[in-house]
Amino acid sequence: MAHQFGIHSGYFHPVLRKWQQSDTGITPANLMYPIFISYDPDAEEEIGSMPGVKRWGVNKIAGHLKPLVASGLQSILIFGVADDSTKDEAGSVADNPNKSPVIPAIKLIRQTFPDLLIACDICLCTWTTHGHCGIITGESQGIDVEKSAERLAEIAVNFAKAGCHVVAPSDMMDGRILAIKKGLKTANLLTKVSVLSYSAKFSSCLYGPFRDAAKSAAKFGNREAYQLPVGSAGLAEKAVDRDVQEGADMLMVKPGIYYLDVIRNVKQKHPSYPLFAYQVSGEYSSIILGAKNGLFGLEAAIIESMTCFRRAGTDVVISYFTPKILDMIKSGEI
Amino acid sequence: MAHQFGIHSGYFHPVLRKWQQSDTGITPANLMYPIFISYDPDAEEEIGSMPGVKRWGVNKIAGHLKPLVASGLQSILIFGVADDSTKDEAGSVADNPNKSPVIPAIKLIRQTFPDLLIACDICLCTWTTHGHCGIITGESQGIDVEKSAERLAEIAVNFAKAGCHVVAPSDMMDGRILAIKKGLKTANLLTKVSVLSYSAKFSSCLYGPFRDAAKSAAKFGNREAYQLPVGSAGLAEKAVDRDVQEGADMLMVKPGIYYLDVIRNVKQKHPSYPLFAYQVSGEYSSIILGAKNGLFGLEAAIIESMTCFRRAGTDVVISYFTPKILDMIKSGEI
Amino acid sequence: MAHQFGIHSGYFHPVLRKWQQSDTGITPANLMYPIFISYDPDAEEEIGSMPGVKRWGVNKIAGHLKPLVASGLQSILIFGVADDSTKDEAGSVADNPNKSPVIPAIKLIRQTFPDLLIACDICLCTWTTHGHCGIITGESQGIDVEKSAERLAEIAVNFAKAGCHVVAPSDMMDGRILAIKKGLKTANLLTKVSVLSYSAKFSSCLYGPFRDAAKSAAKFGNREAYQLPVGSAGLAEKAVDRDVQEGADMLMVKPGIYYLDVIRNVKQKHPSYPLFAYQVSGEYSSIILGAKNGLFGLEAAIIESMTCFRRAGTDVVISYFTPKILDMIKSGEI
Amino acid sequence: MAHQFGIHSGYFHPVLRKWQQSDTGITPANLMYPIFISYDPDAEEEIGSMPGVKRWGVNKIAGHLKPLVASGLQSILIFGVADDSTKDEAGSVADNPNKSPVIPAIKLIRQTFPDLLIACDICLCTWTTHGHCGIITGESQGIDVEKSAERLAEIAVNFAKAGCHVVAPSDMMDGRILAIKKGLKTANLLTKVSVLSYSAKFSSCLYGPFRDAAKSAAKFGNREAYQLPVGSAGLAEKAVDRDVQEGADMLMVKPGIYYLDVIRNVKQKHPSYPLFAYQVSGEYSSIILGAKNGLFGLEAAIIESMTCFRRAGTDVVISYFTPKILDMIKSGEI
Amino acid sequence: MAHQFGIHSGYFHPVLRKWQQSDTGITPANLMYPIFISYDPDAEEEIGSMPGVKRWGVNKIAGHLKPLVASGLQSILIFGVADDSTKDEAGSVADNPNKSPVIPAIKLIRQTFPDLLIACDICLCTWTTHGHCGIITGESQGIDVEKSAERLAEIAVNFAKAGCHVVAPSDMMDGRILAIKKGLKTANLLTKVSVLSYSAKFSSCLYGPFRDAAKSAAKFGNREAYQLPVGSAGLAEKAVDRDVQEGADMLMVKPGIYYLDVIRNVKQKHPSYPLFAYQVSGEYSSIILGAKNGLFGLEAAIIESMTCFRRAGTDVVISYFTPKILDMIKSGEI
Amino acid sequence: MAHQFGIHSGYFHPVLRKWQQSDTGITPANLMYPIFISYDPDAEEEIGSMPGVKRWGVNKIAGHLKPLVASGLQSILIFGVADDSTKDEAGSVADNPNKSPVIPAIKLIRQTFPDLLIACDICLCTWTTHGHCGIITGESQGIDVEKSAERLAEIAVNFAKAGCHVVAPSDMMDGRILAIKKGLKTANLLTKVSVLSYSAKFSSCLYGPFRDAAKSAAKFGNREAYQLPVGSAGLAEKAVDRDVQEGADMLMVKPGIYYLDVIRNVKQKHPSYPLFAYQVSGEYSSIILGAKNGLFGLEAAIIESMTCFRRAGTDVVISYFTPKILDMIKSGEI
Ligand SMILES: [Zn+2]
Ligand SMILES: [Zn+2]
Ligand SMILES: [Zn+2]
Ligand SMILES: [Zn+2]
Ligand SMILES: [Zn+2]
Ligand SMILES: [Zn+2]
Repeated sequence: MAHQFGIHSGYFHPVLRKWQQSDTGITPANLMYPIFISYDPDAEEEIGSMPGVKRWGVNKIAGHLKPLVASGLQSILIFGVADDSTKDEAGSVADNPNKSPVIPAIKLIRQTFPDLLIACDICLCTWTTHGHCGIITGESQGIDVEKSAERLAEIAVNFAKAGCHVVAPSDMMDGRILAIKKGLKTANLLTKVSVLSYSAKFSSCLYGPFRDAAKSAAKFGNREAYQLPVGSAGLAEKAVDRDVQEGADMLMVKPGIYYLDVIRNVKQKHPSYPLFAYQVSGEYSSIILGAKNGLFGLEAAIIESMTCFRRAGTDVVISYFTPKILDMIKSGEI
Repeated sequence: MAHQFGIHSGYFHPVLRKWQQSDTGITPANLMYPIFISYDPDAEEEIGSMPGVKRWGVNKIAGHLKPLVASGLQSILIFGVADDSTKDEAGSVADNPNKSPVIPAIKLIRQTFPDLLIACDICLCTWTTHGHCGIITGESQGIDVEKSAERLAEIAVNFAKAGCHVVAPSDMMDGRILAIKKGLKTANLLTKVSVLSYSAKFSSCLYGPFRDAAKSAAKFGNREAYQLPVGSAGLAEKAVDRDVQEGADMLMVKPGIYYLDVIRNVKQKHPSYPLFAYQVSGEYSSIILGAKNGLFGLEAAIIESMTCFRRAGTDVVISYFTPKILDMIKSGEI
Repeated sequence: MAHQFGIHSGYFHPVLRKWQQSDTGITPANLMYPIFISYDPDAEEEIGSMPGVKRWGVNKIAGHLKPLVASGLQSILIFGVADDSTKDEAGSVADNPNKSPVIPAIKLIRQTFPDLLIACDICLCTWTTHGHCGIITGESQGIDVEKSAERLAEIAVNFAKAGCHVVAPSDMMDGRILAIKKGLKTANLLTKVSVLSYSAKFSSCLYGPFRDAAKSAAKFGNREAYQLPVGSAGLAEKAVDRDVQEGADMLMVKPGIYYLDVIRNVKQKHPSYPLFAYQVSGEYSSIILGAKNGLFGLEAAIIESMTCFRRAGTDVVISYFTPKILDMIKSGEI
Repeated sequence: MAHQFGIHSGYFHPVLRKWQQSDTGITPANLMYPIFISYDPDAEEEIGSMPGVKRWGVNKIAGHLKPLVASGLQSILIFGVADDSTKDEAGSVADNPNKSPVIPAIKLIRQTFPDLLIACDICLCTWTTHGHCGIITGESQGIDVEKSAERLAEIAVNFAKAGCHVVAPSDMMDGRILAIKKGLKTANLLTKVSVLSYSAKFSSCLYGPFRDAAKSAAKFGNREAYQLPVGSAGLAEKAVDRDVQEGADMLMVKPGIYYLDVIRNVKQKHPSYPLFAYQVSGEYSSIILGAKNGLFGLEAAIIESMTCFRRAGTDVVISYFTPKILDMIKSGEI
Repeated sequence: MAHQFGIHSGYFHPVLRKWQQSDTGITPANLMYPIFISYDPDAEEEIGSMPGVKRWGVNKIAGHLKPLVASGLQSILIFGVADDSTKDEAGSVADNPNKSPVIPAIKLIRQTFPDLLIACDICLCTWTTHGHCGIITGESQGIDVEKSAERLAEIAVNFAKAGCHVVAPSDMMDGRILAIKKGLKTANLLTKVSVLSYSAKFSSCLYGPFRDAAKSAAKFGNREAYQLPVGSAGLAEKAVDRDVQEGADMLMVKPGIYYLDVIRNVKQKHPSYPLFAYQVSGEYSSIILGAKNGLFGLEAAIIESMTCFRRAGTDVVISYFTPKILDMIKSGEI
Repeated sequence: MAHQFGIHSGYFHPVLRKWQQSDTGITPANLMYPIFISYDPDAEEEIGSMPGVKRWGVNKIAGHLKPLVASGLQSILIFGVADDSTKDEAGSVADNPNKSPVIPAIKLIRQTFPDLLIACDICLCTWTTHGHCGIITGESQGIDVEKSAERLAEIAVNFAKAGCHVVAPSDMMDGRILAIKKGLKTANLLTKVSVLSYSAKFSSCLYGPFRDAAKSAAKFGNREAYQLPVGSAGLAEKAVDRDVQEGADMLMVKPGIYYLDVIRNVKQKHPSYPLFAYQVSGEYSSIILGAKNGLFGLEAAIIESMTCFRRAGTDVVISYFTPKILDMIKSGEI
């Protein structure tokens, strides 16, 4: 035996193990909780394909968040869900002061939970009749990238004025980070609002259940023109670099587990940017389904997935399991 | 708009896209097919937790492989399944010339399919009464690392003499690669047999169905003493480095998707070593289950998972989906 | 012998060698063919210092390209050669719709070979009386960088309007990529034309024969003010970074073999950009000369040079050997 | 103003700052406390050049450590101080069961503070008449590297048998890590004792006060033959690689602040090894002297130095300020 | 002994040592000398906390520099010291043609020593009543970043017009490099003046004596809002990247020794930028104090510090020891 | 124009250019001169395919070297050329004290030029009847790697005893560095002789003229079994790592210019090892031929090639141009 190649002598004592272990712990600071705010102010609706996740009305959301904040919840990510009858081509309901479900929710949550960091998803698909993430233009029914960026910036500024701390554009258009930064500067909010960019968002098969939840499926065509091809590490790197050059404050990779190598790449190239991973609906529901069918234990699978995210370089995981994980932390299971 | 930050002008023409795309294609050369060889020479048994996977007897295996080889199959990974009555403390049945199911299977397959690359898993858990991956010793019932490495080397040499091209130790003991290399040298097989090391094998919750398949669950204790903790990128790096220093020819990360960042790390640090990923039983069964329950399409999920493996730096994926993927390649779906 | 240090056990079997070999193959997709288009529409002139290379007139070029396209040619790089009598200070003949040899050539080739990717070199030296790569200004007879960039953008836009897919500025002035991108945007061609930047072009002794071919030698001074000093890896990195920041879609290193380390550096820092190397006239003629004098075999030297380019990280080699290599591929020599 | 280049929007909120800050905190786990054990069992001697540091006798040491352990002290590093009359050429007093001050100290401390991790410096200079770190040999009065390594291994094994968890050879001879590992293996202590190597120890001008403390100045010649030249990053890398190849479990750079770039290099190349930095006597005394003379505040300088160590990649700082820092942690100053 | 792990055979011969040693030599080209120019044209004032450093009047400075230039001095860094009675909110004395001490000093030095490279520190703190590095604004008494950048650009242009080759902004505001570059372009000085950015300037405890020297202590608040937190490697990287994107020609880390790892990081990420380190007043005075108190020899400590700067990747050290080091070079001590 | 992207402001002044330029100078320390020592003690024979290079007898060599040493020559690399009649299967003439041309040459040169560093090539091909680089064995006429390594070690030790400082094995067998180190240790020369490994020696078409010079062409078969395939960056990395693990003191890449990316890789991975490049006979003769045919100037091509070697990371170039370059240095052309 070549005794110099062994690895066991490095971690036989508790103090040694502390020194050996890199930082892959899971604390409330490593979690962001996505919530769906319905146009119906009294809603509390189950979502069939995502067991345990609901759409909440503005009158119900504080009640839902209160025990979570008590358990240590530090940040949320708001998605609006629009009434179909209010949708139009430009998604004007998004920031309509009277009809948007997001704006009153921001105000209420900021007032009720002053220490909670509020992030808002910024996209058009949830607010438009066509269900695409940008403004559709001309005969080709293609996306007008510049007009889309302008519209996204408008929404971002209005959500920021309502009180959110972070805006998170999920559309993947060229130039939207820069447009949002310009908008925030004009509104004198440049240094009081962070931009969390969905920088490397792939055209994955794992988004199905979410589109149920947000009622945001595209009515025609698909999103492959603006989301990234799953195999392209190169375009992912270019997309992240683009967002860094345009001024993003924080970066995201989406989906999560299938893209851990991309997470690793982004953290390695941009170590000074807080990095988010979105554990998407298909990942969430797969774990629940596997546990129900005896492939593995639910808690074991949640812990293994969260630990893997942290090991790969994720600072914050956006996860529907957040309430369950806060419980597990409180009970000492994690 | 900051027109210099756009990424679209780089891939509007087919020739440009060829230049842009990094190599993430899936060909038969990127697949290794794991097969279970039963002690019962006429077996063809379904495995409940892994739909579509069977244990094959030596009399049946050629019939199963023939159409796959015709479809382009290039390499297999053999696991033996022992009759409980033949197991003992040292796993002596493994390479018993009269009782081992593996040795006749190697001989038959090498003769029947002379171009097929034959790899054999080398471990003790499937052959021992206690179900652990090494020789148990003394009162503490701990593993004797040196004796285990010697025994593994014996088995490896005997499988090599029977005609396999690659031996693949999956036990994670310090020093076993070196012991196997010494054994092969003594047998004058050093340059005619490759060692594929299970270098970074994590203590994951995703192995459940496999233990059914190989009848290899541990009878007491667990494997945490020799498998890696899921969060430890550091120990994974040390384990891979150890195997490289001991002389491994090829490296593996196991399980797969949850460890893509580790795959990325290993490829980055050891670019000159062919890298394998094992898409383990829990991953396989999760995809089948998710597809059955409408979370995503089966083919879409298989393609996305395989593409992700390749993007992260995997050269060869060990996958139970191999027969299905060979079909998809033939039909042009991939 | 330290048997763990041996490397032979890793590649004794054909499947193992497939796994071991990194991708250094040479296919038609890895080649771009440079052609000289003469102002004389019927030209077919030999170039003394570059045996086997000719200046072609627009009436002859399709006949020359036809068998090459049939052999798999995928992309060309067009250089114009001007009649001395048409040259002026600003190189206005370059894109003069009546006098430029390039514009009719683009139109003809695009029409005749619709799948062929057409790239055009963009510079001033071939079109100006002084033979420099920019607009000369003031008493100091120095280059006016901004005016030069504007003029190059004009030419690029006009070549793009004529139908080329890629414009390739070879002048090395600060700011010309940005100017070209602005021009293309105004012309609404931003996403339909790629910019291939001669990013790291060194002031080498290997360009002699080319200046014969393109009739582009400088009439006074030299190009050291804008080309890079041969030893400066640092300025090469800054020049490439500048082009990436200005929006280049693809990058180039020129000359080739003497700069393989620079190619390696560029690929390592910008892995998501397709990378070109120009095997320049001095390299081409040296190989022909060495083979004629028995230093090595012609085919052996071509294959070794191309393989070295690919190993260093080159995606596409711009080579005068393209016709010969297409033949070698067809005949199975490569 | 180029608003996309600003960095302030990334850290205006406390939760954002948590995300932004990399892990440079200082906890008791990041500290190792060096102590001098005198041959005089009742010693409690001040050391003139190191205000606040004392040599302790075995009868006094538990009293000194008790309040520190109560404040969270997790590990110590023991240096022995020998009576001149007991020194000889081979340093035999080091592990003489009757005369060594270290062996009874280890036993006592292990028994009194069972959770405290005990590390022991292993060198010869403190025990030999000549004051060199190895065995002097022949006419040239040079060091016999092999004999030195054997003697160091003997001492290491005897200290390990007395109960220390970590042995820390500080001599810088080739081959001593391997010799120690072999000795530990023979003693069946291989997996129960860690080796912390003084891997990159430079020939610095900052050791003066320590030699007072340990009474270990060389009687002739100097240590430049075995310590590293201060400018040689290359030899430092080779020395660390050597120790990793010989089997070291943990690595050290010494001195500290002047070598932060070396610390960075070591952490980058060997991220899976816990990394120690020794804030040596000259650094310690400089901070005390500067504070006394009004250049800076004492606490401010201690915090800045410790934070810099952590930022550079140090896991554990060996510091004479440990008692003061434990106090500062307890009082919330850190 | 594992003879293959030894490192001594690599450097036993003088030619081998030449090959082994990386370039850490100290020549006059590696030094920049900071000088304080007083408003009093005849000043030659000692600075108590920095033994050996003086404030010089314009009538005395040439006499001081003459022997240094003769000893090889190649570059200086000028700091102005203002009469309190001339300070105002905007620091208008800085570039007031009649009152600024800097402008006549530049003119005189350029004329007297035509080969000496002249750099000027650009900041507001030394010229303003409030002592902050920017323009104070509004009720919050915060810094107006844009106005500050404009004012700094004005000063930079005026110093450049007076004849300095390099301007060195030390304020750490977002956007000031870009503003200075714009100003220089308008003044047609873009390619005749370099910008040396204080890119990573930390909020350190080591600046005390300097503030005496430059009479620039802040009258209220502190500089933590614009200087970097000592532990933040991430923000340091972002700050440097920001300056590179804004067009800086050269980079600086300040203070020096405590930040060698940051120096290493910057050189690694931006190898093509000349890198400066500022050995600040607290470092300078600590070395003098330690030597006076017998901790180490003065020359030994100077050489070790300079060698460490060079090893970490520093191209040029800004050091108050410059005159002494020039002497040591001349006498062959270095 | 985006003025922040310009690169010219960084190098307009001589002092700035000094700071900007990385170290690519060419001094005598960067050159090693290969010489052929003939079995005929009075030889001075021209070699047809390498104009200007001769085989020297031991009685003539001092006369040839004297003016070169006077011009600054610091190191040589000796190749022996054997009389065919003295060759046998084991190359026993190599170190035969009475017949080897190398041993008397070493003794003479060491005595005549005591400061000159003497390196000796170690291989079998020049001494054996079959012309292969190892011991041929058995019916397969393959190479016995272990016996070859033993024989090479014998020769190395005997050359070392004769007085050479460096032995340079050029055979590419696994295990020969380790065998040589063992031999040197037994001879008590371990720390007095360096091993310069031909680590990455490719199977190139550029060696033709050398085989004339050394009369070392293989009589049957070829060297592809032990030299590296030209495209395999991966095997090159493994081969270098193998030599580092076996204890090599210095590394080499061969041939040169076509392998600059490999040079870059080796320097990047092993920065602490002095790196050599061999500008082989085919490169040498190509430059002479190109210059004679007017493709470029001879001096320009020599300087460009040497500068490129240095830029890529070469510390020492082994070049037949050494005498000419020493002249160029002396005359100030370089
Ligand atoms: Zn959307
Ligand atoms: Zn097992
Ligand atoms: Zn040109
Ligand atoms: Zn010592
Ligand atoms: Zn200031
Ligand atoms: Zn040979």
